[in-house]
Amino acid sequence: MDRVFNFSAGPGTLPAAVLEEAREEMLVYKDAGASVMEISHRSPQYTELAETTRQHFRDLLGIGHDWKILFLQGGASLQFHQTALNFLTAGAVGNYVVTGAWAEKALAEAALIGEIHTSASSADGNHNHIPDPDSWDVSDKAAYVHITSNNTIFGTQFAGDPDPGVPMICDASSDFLSRPIDMDKYGLIYAGAQKNIGPAGVTVVLVKDSFLDRIPQGLPTLMDYRTHASKLFHTPPVFAVYMVEKVLRWIKQGGDLSAMKQRNDEKAALLYERIDIGDFYRGHALTGSRSNMNVTFNLPTEQLEGQFVAEAKSHGLVALKGHRSVGGIRASIYNACPRKGVEALASFMSDFEKQNG
Amino acid sequence: MDRVFNFSAGPGTLPAAVLEEAREEMLVYKDAGASVMEISHRSPQYTELAETTRQHFRDLLGIGHDWKILFLQGGASLQFHQTALNFLTAGAVGNYVVTGAWAEKALAEAALIGEIHTSASSADGNHNHIPDPDSWDVSDKAAYVHITSNNTIFGTQFAGDPDPGVPMICDASSDFLSRPIDMDKYGLIYAGAQKNIGPAGVTVVLVKDSFLDRIPQGLPTLMDYRTHASKLFHTPPVFAVYMVEKVLRWIKQGGDLSAMKQRNDEKAALLYERIDIGDFYRGHALTGSRSNMNVTFNLPTEQLEGQFVAEAKSHGLVALKGHRSVGGIRASIYNACPRKGVEALASFMSDFEKQNG
Repeated sequence: MDRVFNFSAGPGTLPAAVLEEAREEMLVYKDAGASVMEISHRSPQYTELAETTRQHFRDLLGIGHDWKILFLQGGASLQFHQTALNFLTAGAVGNYVVTGAWAEKALAEAALIGEIHTSASSADGNHNHIPDPDSWDVSDKAAYVHITSNNTIFGTQFAGDPDPGVPMICDASSDFLSRPIDMDKYGLIYAGAQKNIGPAGVTVVLVKDSFLDRIPQGLPTLMDYRTHASKLFHTPPVFAVYMVEKVLRWIKQGGDLSAMKQRNDEKAALLYERIDIGDFYRGHALTGSRSNMNVTFNLPTEQLEGQFVAEAKSHGLVALKGHRSVGGIRASIYNACPRKGVEALASFMSDFEKQNG
Repeated sequence: MDRVFNFSAGPGTLPAAVLEEAREEMLVYKDAGASVMEISHRSPQYTELAETTRQHFRDLLGIGHDWKILFLQGGASLQFHQTALNFLTAGAVGNYVVTGAWAEKALAEAALIGEIHTSASSADGNHNHIPDPDSWDVSDKAAYVHITSNNTIFGTQFAGDPDPGVPMICDASSDFLSRPIDMDKYGLIYAGAQKNIGPAGVTVVLVKDSFLDRIPQGLPTLMDYRTHASKLFHTPPVFAVYMVEKVLRWIKQGGDLSAMKQRNDEKAALLYERIDIGDFYRGHALTGSRSNMNVTFNLPTEQLEGQFVAEAKSHGLVALKGHRSVGGIRASIYNACPRKGVEALASFMSDFEKQNG
């Protein structure tokens, strides 16, 4: 069977060149005489691999060694708990900008730990927009403001990096390394790898040294970010890190993050143009809040939406069914989704409208 | 470069046939039109994969659906915290049998949660034995007795499944599925996959329904075992589960766990015979407590130990350096370590002794 154009919301598509390289090395990694999955995490091979991967992050994001780069596990869902456990200290308030289902979950986990405050919410419009940062209500005692930079389900995305006056914690799972980031605005950024930077199984956490200093004593060892910042404490998810290294190298081969953003903007524009051309397709996200990672839209009827998904699949365009919270169609066009795939989808959208509009 | 005989303590060697199958499927998994790393964890392909993997566990261990089989992340180190958080409830005492470094860490994490008690310890003999279960001091209010079934660093292993009168929680990371288990003795068994059943990145947790009922309310969502027992809550480490499925299928192809135990016993005997034949090699573990997963021994001098490791490597026998707590040599001969590799090591040991003894 051939490879299809895969619009899965996550785990998402990976660059074919990355998969080919992994295939090539599957039985023997470099000079190890064994697969990368079979070597000690204390071996020179893994040590070099991890450091190379960290350097890719530094190069792409323009950060130095005052940022610690951690390869953790448990996904964004565990980070909802862990960020609060480390930074929602006594007397402080965790501020949350609620722009979708994942932000709601982050807030709910923090509420189990300490005092929380909703700085802004887009719930009134079924999360079809990003609340204007100028309108956010940030507590006096805010320990941080937590944002979700891209909202997979609803197809909204922050246009840039807000400045709420306190360090932000960002769940960047669904748009990480899809564009430049103004790192000065953040204390910690976390991202499950499985959308833009690798396979499921590793959560990349970037945390500033000065932010680490705020962590109280007595936390469970694995939950304390300092455990991982100070040394390689336990076995990391070696293969997932190995894949992230390849994906980051692939990103760098295409230029910097501005170049990546431009490619992503252009891909997304191909679909939004199709949506805006008439009344057949209706975008869920408001224009200024549109995501260039997840393009969400509805058709005139649910029946047509079902037909769209089925016919697209027969054309090799798969995983387009929208999340039940929005319904309709969701095209996830992360970094590795090739422009050719997006062009094929845009073309299919035109044809489908002609036949059914 | 060719594949070597790999005695890494973990991540450990995988069956070559498993790696070859993964290589074959790297770009397209079954009818998915994409790599297994690129498909949704809600897809029919992953749903079937996870259920097949669970069925392998049920088949091999002879358990039914009253055991939940969870694919978590964070390794044994996170389980040290999570088991205590779920089961070390108010008024109860966590009992620990301390047979090595990992058991010590498990106990230390539990001490952050509640009351703990050391039922037995082998610290007096630098953990060269498993304390006789008849001598264990189990608290009246014991919530559980926690054991480490095999001790990677020291090369000791429980000879069977003790019966301390309360359910046991077992860290089986380093001998899981290397032999049959009397599951009735346990409430929960956990294992990082990277020694006997797959690559790093997935922690398999088996937990009995009746044990789940003991969990208190209000735990962090990801830390509550019931979150994962009731449904697929968040993105699992898909590729690691995929590899575990293949390794378990490979185990079943070789027969049941009794057959696996026999092969492991025979492999270990090849090395212990070499050790016992004279005074040149001195085994660390006492005879009745010897591990058939990690064979630990010393040579007359540290210099000879260094020479042994270096010469072995030049013969394609790698990762034999012992842990600093014991020094000397550690040969990790998990399920997937081929008999041929163990024979080559035994033969090398004879030659090395002849030349240096």
